[in-house]
Amino acid sequence: MYKAKAYSAASSTAPFVSNTIPRRDVTARDVQIDILFCGICHSDLHTVRNEWSDVMPTVYPVVPGHEIVGRVAKVGSGVTAFKKGDLVGVGCLVDSDQSCPNCLAHLEQLCPNGTFTYNSPDKHLGGVTYGGYSDSIVVDEHFVLHVPGNLNLAGVAPLLCAGITTYSPMRRWGNIQGKKVGVVGLGGLGHMGVKFARAFGAHVVVFTTSPRKKEDALRLGAHEVILSTSPEEMQKHAGTFSFILDTISADHDINAYLNMLGPDGNITLVGAPEKPLPVNAFALLFGRRSLSGSLIGGLKETQEMLDFCGKHNITSDVEVIPIQKVNEAYDRLLKSDVKYRFSIDMDSLKSE
Amino acid sequence: MYKAKAYSAASSTAPFVSNTIPRRDVTARDVQIDILFCGICHSDLHTVRNEWSDVMPTVYPVVPGHEIVGRVAKVGSGVTAFKKGDLVGVGCLVDSDQSCPNCLAHLEQLCPNGTFTYNSPDKHLGGVTYGGYSDSIVVDEHFVLHVPGNLNLAGVAPLLCAGITTYSPMRRWGNIQGKKVGVVGLGGLGHMGVKFARAFGAHVVVFTTSPRKKEDALRLGAHEVILSTSPEEMQKHAGTFSFILDTISADHDINAYLNMLGPDGNITLVGAPEKPLPVNAFALLFGRRSLSGSLIGGLKETQEMLDFCGKHNITSDVEVIPIQKVNEAYDRLLKSDVKYRFSIDMDSLKSE
Repeated sequence: MYKAKAYSAASSTAPFVSNTIPRRDVTARDVQIDILFCGICHSDLHTVRNEWSDVMPTVYPVVPGHEIVGRVAKVGSGVTAFKKGDLVGVGCLVDSDQSCPNCLAHLEQLCPNGTFTYNSPDKHLGGVTYGGYSDSIVVDEHFVLHVPGNLNLAGVAPLLCAGITTYSPMRRWGNIQGKKVGVVGLGGLGHMGVKFARAFGAHVVVFTTSPRKKEDALRLGAHEVILSTSPEEMQKHAGTFSFILDTISADHDINAYLNMLGPDGNITLVGAPEKPLPVNAFALLFGRRSLSGSLIGGLKETQEMLDFCGKHNITSDVEVIPIQKVNEAYDRLLKSDVKYRFSIDMDSLKSE
Repeated sequence: MYKAKAYSAASSTAPFVSNTIPRRDVTARDVQIDILFCGICHSDLHTVRNEWSDVMPTVYPVVPGHEIVGRVAKVGSGVTAFKKGDLVGVGCLVDSDQSCPNCLAHLEQLCPNGTFTYNSPDKHLGGVTYGGYSDSIVVDEHFVLHVPGNLNLAGVAPLLCAGITTYSPMRRWGNIQGKKVGVVGLGGLGHMGVKFARAFGAHVVVFTTSPRKKEDALRLGAHEVILSTSPEEMQKHAGTFSFILDTISADHDINAYLNMLGPDGNITLVGAPEKPLPVNAFALLFGRRSLSGSLIGGLKETQEMLDFCGKHNITSDVEVIPIQKVNEAYDRLLKSDVKYRFSIDMDSLKSE
């Protein structure tokens, strides 16, 4: 066991402070990683503020962060896929049973015995797992990913959650080349959805409530932008979409978007509104439409996504901050005042 | 043009009365059918009482009925697939444009220019189409189906709507052999869902609020029955279903059923509750579950369903009534007082 530097919060209302946390010494299967960048995901904020207490109550102190990019510092004796110096990533999962039908189908995210990167029971050290707001982490090699060398690393970090979260449901839906694909909301998730949909060859349409986001949507790759507050614009596109990725976690009218789908169309939710969404059954019946949810992806698919990003030169648009600005960043995140993801430069932790 | 006998309702509150309606003379593509039996579907009642006025306002007088079984009386000069004397069926559709992508994909039910069997603009005679509460109907041969000769014809009639409505989403979901499949509600639709799921080789579980339905569910083919009002019974089966067919059109807690699904599980709604269903986004996200709607099926699939029924000796459990009892039957339908579908013996219309 060794000590790592980290930023932790002591309660749902406490600010982040500099701290040290225990990390295990590498076992035969482990990779020890010097963290270079860690993205700030909205889930981090929900967890720190214990807003998901019904489902996953937060254990304090909490060290969030599951969009981790770093360099291998050390590997265990049995590790074959990684060596010291490799660029690697870690996402939302650091363990699973690797024996259930979901794990065997490369769907570790659906494993009933998965271990999240933070705030999950830690099988090795007891207590809970600590995430990437830290200078170092130790992870089972099965949950470590290769990062292509040609990409901007600060912008790679968010791929590990925002990236795979948007890539996976589009891939799962099938070939969207030439199809009309919508992305609802242009934030951390939405802007990645636009980039992937464009790279997959879809006709990409962004739905937004903010006219000021139009220019940026087009820059990111959208072909069209629909102002969702305009009934005329919405009506014009009704019944024409094959697939819509809904990234909104605020309350919104899901039926308005179901009505945008053509026959056999699907909306996949990747945001998690707290209140139930009232769904009009008729909107599903007519046109055999469907409404799905999706949560990150399996390790194999996450690697595929990273390789795809390397090939197509896709990263997240990030604002790089030192870790000392994390409290301020959370306040700004609540106001959606970031284009489009904060990425913490972990070099800043060295001065603590 | 000729006159056919029919039972029609003159307003949303008027009882059915004996009447005559115009039917067109057969064109080259048409099949004229002497109707033997017509099932009573809940949609008939919704339409007669104008309960879907927002979506499809009812034009009076209305002659409902889209679960039609009969014998070919005459065929047009260009008809090749049918001859006089053939046993045939007609379901919810009597026309479509036959040129749109959905029609070309054998999904006529999704055609934007489809003509429903009743209360739909009639391209031939003007006004609206008249359904199967009648002694005769004339239908384009593409929308006429072959009925296997070995089945009880009164019990075949409901296959044309209740049958295909439950068969299609199960088939679409994929191979359910050996999978755990739920059917919510044991009425006209639900009892067909049970029969099909059993014939497909699934482990069939019925969810019901009525303990008195248990015995009948098992007789119809269910392996297990869950009392949905019992939190203990529900909890015991949580997360274990591959597919659930939800046939309930009354308000109900859809999240309770979403939680019954295992990873990648799906609920397909075939009932249409009037009020929106509050859907918990978390219930969809965790486990990548999905909620779909489905509405009847295409003509090719409907024929496949009828052939499947012939092979597996599947019909609807019906209570046969004379058409003179149709008003009484509607009152009983509202109280779910029928096992499981009314089938009108159209021989009774001869005395009118």
